Amino acid sequence: PGKKVLIVYAHQEPKSFNGSLLKIAVEELTKQGCSVGRTINNVLLNFPPASPQNDSSLLPTGHLHNPEAFNYAVETWEAYKRGGLSKDLVEEQKKVQEADLLIFQFPLFWFSMPAILKGWMDRVLVQGFAYDLTKANGGGLLQDKLCLFSFTTGGNQEMYSNEAFCGDIRYVLWPMQHGIMHFCGVKVLEPHICYAPEHVSEEKRKEMLTAWTQRLKTLWKEEPIDCSPDWYFK
Amino acid sequence: PGKKVLIVYAHQEPKSFNGSLLKIAVEELTKQGCSVGRTINNVLLNFPPASPQNDSSLLPTGHLHNPEAFNYAVETWEAYKRGGLSKDLVEEQKKVQEADLLIFQFPLFWFSMPAILKGWMDRVLVQGFAYDLTKANGGGLLQDKLCLFSFTTGGNQEMYSNEAFCGDIRYVLWPMQHGIMHFCGVKVLEPHICYAPEHVSEEKRKEMLTAWTQRLKTLWKEEPIDCSPDWYFK
Repeated sequence: PGKKVLIVYAHQEPKSFNGSLLKIAVEELTKQGCSVGRTINNVLLNFPPASPQNDSSLLPTGHLHNPEAFNYAVETWEAYKRGGLSKDLVEEQKKVQEADLLIFQFPLFWFSMPAILKGWMDRVLVQGFAYDLTKANGGGLLQDKLCLFSFTTGGNQEMYSNEAFCGDIRYVLWPMQHGIMHFCGVKVLEPHICYAPEHVSEEKRKEMLTAWTQRLKTLWKEEPIDCSPDWYFK
Repeated sequence: PGKKVLIVYAHQEPKSFNGSLLKIAVEELTKQGCSVGRTINNVLLNFPPASPQNDSSLLPTGHLHNPEAFNYAVETWEAYKRGGLSKDLVEEQKKVQEADLLIFQFPLFWFSMPAILKGWMDRVLVQGFAYDLTKANGGGLLQDKLCLFSFTTGGNQEMYSNEAFCGDIRYVLWPMQHGIMHFCGVKVLEPHICYAPEHVSEEKRKEMLTAWTQRLKTLWKEEPIDCSPDWYFK
């Protein structure tokens, strides 16, 4: 109770299986006394813009640290330092900063996040806010937070093994869990994967939804996983 | 000579290292007598939209195969079959269809493609056009084409090994090469990776640009690599 949760949700259809998983998370966590917010707002869709001059991440619009050669990482870092990030970005960062737990809820598109969710990562997690490369250890700045990747797949579980077409699901998890969240200092909970909800029976779908509810009930007792390479790929 | 190349380019700054790599590819391939096109046009930025009703991929706007529950994969497949995909998408697909070689030129963002390039993949490679799940073998429809992922990294090469933070670069390549292109039936050439161009000497940068020019001179003699798991991760 009292914990803050931010659900970063990337699906268009409330009646989808992802929509059901979102609804369950909001209801169950609210029941526990957590404060639950959700995002992705529409403003974040337009990323990246076609030209630096139109980059709505930077305020005042058109202000560039180095107008001679636009470097997104440098410009957003400088903007962060001078308080020159746009309002929508600052609001997203505030939500992240306040959250104890980030839940990413989405359908797997092409072995990865949908573009809109990748755009959220690209745009919100700027240097200065999420990490600091001038620090010795890579400098993840989002300490004392948990995250959880909850997603659906098109292929069934048998397709995700070293012997099958999709390969080990850990290859898919690697860029998201290790490459993004662990890099930023966020601790990673066991991912929650619903395989092929579109291709299973209604009964099986209900079981999957029940399993999510059950997991959420004891979520705060879970220990983070080690998503780093030492044991992960060997 | 006579070969068609489509360069899918995702960087905002012509003066960037990515911009230089693009320029080299256009010049060298044109000199060889290839026809070279490039994309990403701005229309593709707005993806995915906030609601199915606003999905500009589908024509007429608002026409849905199943308005009760929006399913992007189903809707775009149905739209493809009835000729109901939007003009910008049809144009992108035509460029892909005509190309003998697709070159993806981009900076690696968060262990993956920038959101705009992921959006291009999500939106352009729809069922019916790029693959057909009703076929026995997964049904990649983009046969007799080559692709090449050419990208820059922030981290240097030493950071991409099983012992270092970023892990083996093949984990990064897996979703793009195997998960997307191989799935669609496109043959994959050796990736072209420029490590940390922002952090090396001017001389080293020139060497990297020269290496790209040299590689392009004999590109059409290259054999595709095997990007599938049998040898890839073992």
